Amino acid sequence: MKGREKMALIVQKYGGSSVANAEKLKIVAKRVIDTVNEGNQVVVVLSAPAGMTDELTRKAKEISSNPCKREMDVLLATGEQISISLFSMALKDMGQDAISFTAYQIGIITDTKHTKAKIQSINSDKIKEQLNLGKVVVIAGFQGITENNDITTLGRGGSDTTGVALGAALSADEIEICTDVDGIYTADPRIVKNARKIDNISYEEMLELAGSGSKVLHLRSIEIAAKYGLKIHLRTTFQKEKGTIVKEEDETMEKSVVRGIGHSKNEAKITITGVPDEPGIAAKIFSEISKENVNVDIIIQNLGEQGKNDISFTVPSSDFDRARKVSLEIKNNLNAKEVISNESIGKVAIVGVGMKSNPGVAATMFKTLADANINILMISTSEIKVACIINANDVDKAVEVLHKAFNLGKEIE
Amino acid sequence: MKGREKMALIVQKYGGSSVANAEKLKIVAKRVIDTVNEGNQVVVVLSAPAGMTDELTRKAKEISSNPCKREMDVLLATGEQISISLFSMALKDMGQDAISFTAYQIGIITDTKHTKAKIQSINSDKIKEQLNLGKVVVIAGFQGITENNDITTLGRGGSDTTGVALGAALSADEIEICTDVDGIYTADPRIVKNARKIDNISYEEMLELAGSGSKVLHLRSIEIAAKYGLKIHLRTTFQKEKGTIVKEEDETMEKSVVRGIGHSKNEAKITITGVPDEPGIAAKIFSEISKENVNVDIIIQNLGEQGKNDISFTVPSSDFDRARKVSLEIKNNLNAKEVISNESIGKVAIVGVGMKSNPGVAATMFKTLADANINILMISTSEIKVACIINANDVDKAVEVLHKAFNLGKEIE
Repeated sequence: MKGREKMALIVQKYGGSSVANAEKLKIVAKRVIDTVNEGNQVVVVLSAPAGMTDELTRKAKEISSNPCKREMDVLLATGEQISISLFSMALKDMGQDAISFTAYQIGIITDTKHTKAKIQSINSDKIKEQLNLGKVVVIAGFQGITENNDITTLGRGGSDTTGVALGAALSADEIEICTDVDGIYTADPRIVKNARKIDNISYEEMLELAGSGSKVLHLRSIEIAAKYGLKIHLRTTFQKEKGTIVKEEDETMEKSVVRGIGHSKNEAKITITGVPDEPGIAAKIFSEISKENVNVDIIIQNLGEQGKNDISFTVPSSDFDRARKVSLEIKNNLNAKEVISNESIGKVAIVGVGMKSNPGVAATMFKTLADANINILMISTSEIKVACIINANDVDKAVEVLHKAFNLGKEIE
Repeated sequence: MKGREKMALIVQKYGGSSVANAEKLKIVAKRVIDTVNEGNQVVVVLSAPAGMTDELTRKAKEISSNPCKREMDVLLATGEQISISLFSMALKDMGQDAISFTAYQIGIITDTKHTKAKIQSINSDKIKEQLNLGKVVVIAGFQGITENNDITTLGRGGSDTTGVALGAALSADEIEICTDVDGIYTADPRIVKNARKIDNISYEEMLELAGSGSKVLHLRSIEIAAKYGLKIHLRTTFQKEKGTIVKEEDETMEKSVVRGIGHSKNEAKITITGVPDEPGIAAKIFSEISKENVNVDIIIQNLGEQGKNDISFTVPSSDFDRARKVSLEIKNNLNAKEVISNESIGKVAIVGVGMKSNPGVAATMFKTLADANINILMISTSEIKVACIINANDVDKAVEVLHKAFNLGKEIE
């Protein structure tokens, strides 16, 4: 035993690239065995092998342009089942007793929203029983089961949420999300050369960054970690150094006004023009849209011609087709004028808990973008975030100039 | 409605080649919809897409030379889950309501013998409920679940057994096993040019043929059909003509003395020499071997040197490694002389209910093989079968000369 005082319970989640083939799978199995040999109990949560979810989705699209969502979940859940069985075989082959469980075998109960389900409860009895027998317990991420025994999935990145929800159910001492990036950076290092790895970040900042396009952690996993006060250690699978800890906000965090810069190039904007100016009309529109399981990000309402309104909103590109379809229906039902869409927009956001007590931050952001000749299409703010919708091809430049303006980079040696 | 007087409940099982890709899957979906449109309720049982079980097995072998059997079942069960989800999507896309179920979702309970489990019970409530809602119910073949919620598989060809067991549980009017062959033949048509399709065959004959190497139906599926008196219609997926009906023996069947010729080239023979001549020694040996889940076929015991015995037995090639390993352990424990193995042997068998009342049949077989210079290594008989173990490279010739000797061919026009 080294590093930890007594036996700890650790949940380790590994992404698809960590289990992509037999070679990587064996390296990860060795990493898990090392953790056991340090005197810990380990629960492993796995994603599908890299590329498999895309491959299965492609197969479904060959069958139907709009595949039944219940059946889509039955199909996609096989990916993680393949990972857990192969991984358990690897552990046993290397002399470490292990057992795999699918979501239904341990009872990861979700709601009934196929392809975007939320975990409601996890029965931890069976896992504890197997841990106490000295086994590593290997659990399929991303999937769940409804009360009615239908298979569900949690949406892209959902294995993070399985990991954190298991951490909560088991009162785990540590949750490690092991992936192919080594932590959260002040900006995407592929865009900003001197981007700096962040050691500690609060749940709220992480939520805002994830909501601004940083795909490192599944949103819902951060919400669950925040609710139960669980620390998430986000790190890379194939190296030993520490990554980024996501945790409660503490006083050391306020030192930097802006913690990091998020961005996304996969946004789309839809405008419905000539909407009658009636009370509750926005609520009506967005309740229709949410029924289609579309994630609306920013909404703006402008007074247009002849006392009518123009209502604009943005959605992730992946939700665009559905959003446009329902918008056209709404336009017809409300006798509105037209639906205008723009599929090549992006978003840049500055995030930091220190912004609460620094009112000038937004102004600095707008001036920086203006100086770089970047046109701002829409703005959205929270206490700890300012996000601007801009043209997709301005995004890289915006990230660079903002990173510099807020002094986020490493010192140049 | 045509062809049937009233609404019938039909179970249709499709093999891996019928669901190998999107194109075939849609053709089969159309076939199922045609059956519904004729006024029937249809339960579909599917195998994994052709090649997938081999591909998954290969992945497991990359991880471990002797993969954990429990985890192997978790892995292999994904193949059928992919088939049922894609097939249900296809039916829904073509306007036919449908729902898929894995083994655990409907409760196909098996014993705990991983990779070779036997179905113990099926809960038909959920299936009936969905059929009565007008849906086609699409069920994963080959797999089951233990009382303890562990995933099991039924062995190669196990989807046939799922189909027949469902037919029994649902009191189905018809069970169709749809495959890439159009029926049972008097001999393998790839070996014997004028082999004839058999219209009707008894359960016992089908069992003996299957046990002699005819891989057309899973053995256990025939046993279940016989137990419940269910007719199996074995036919090809992509053509309309009738195949072979497997059913109770009736008086018309005795007309032909030999119904067909079975063969196998994938057998192995193991001999343990110098075994002490003690009472119960054979029972001891074969109880050890059966613990390893090895299917022993034919056993012969010879008096060898110095009052010791030579014990020989044959196994399918797929069981050879395990059989040899346990034989070496037995040899050491019993202080026997040596273990001799031969991996290139085969089997040829004549089968027919008419043999019961025709004692000269075996003699004709032996003479025919002798006239063709084929050496017989071992013999095994039942009331309706004579099987000879011969060298693997004599098998084709043996099948040909026997087919001719018993006049099984089509008349030449």
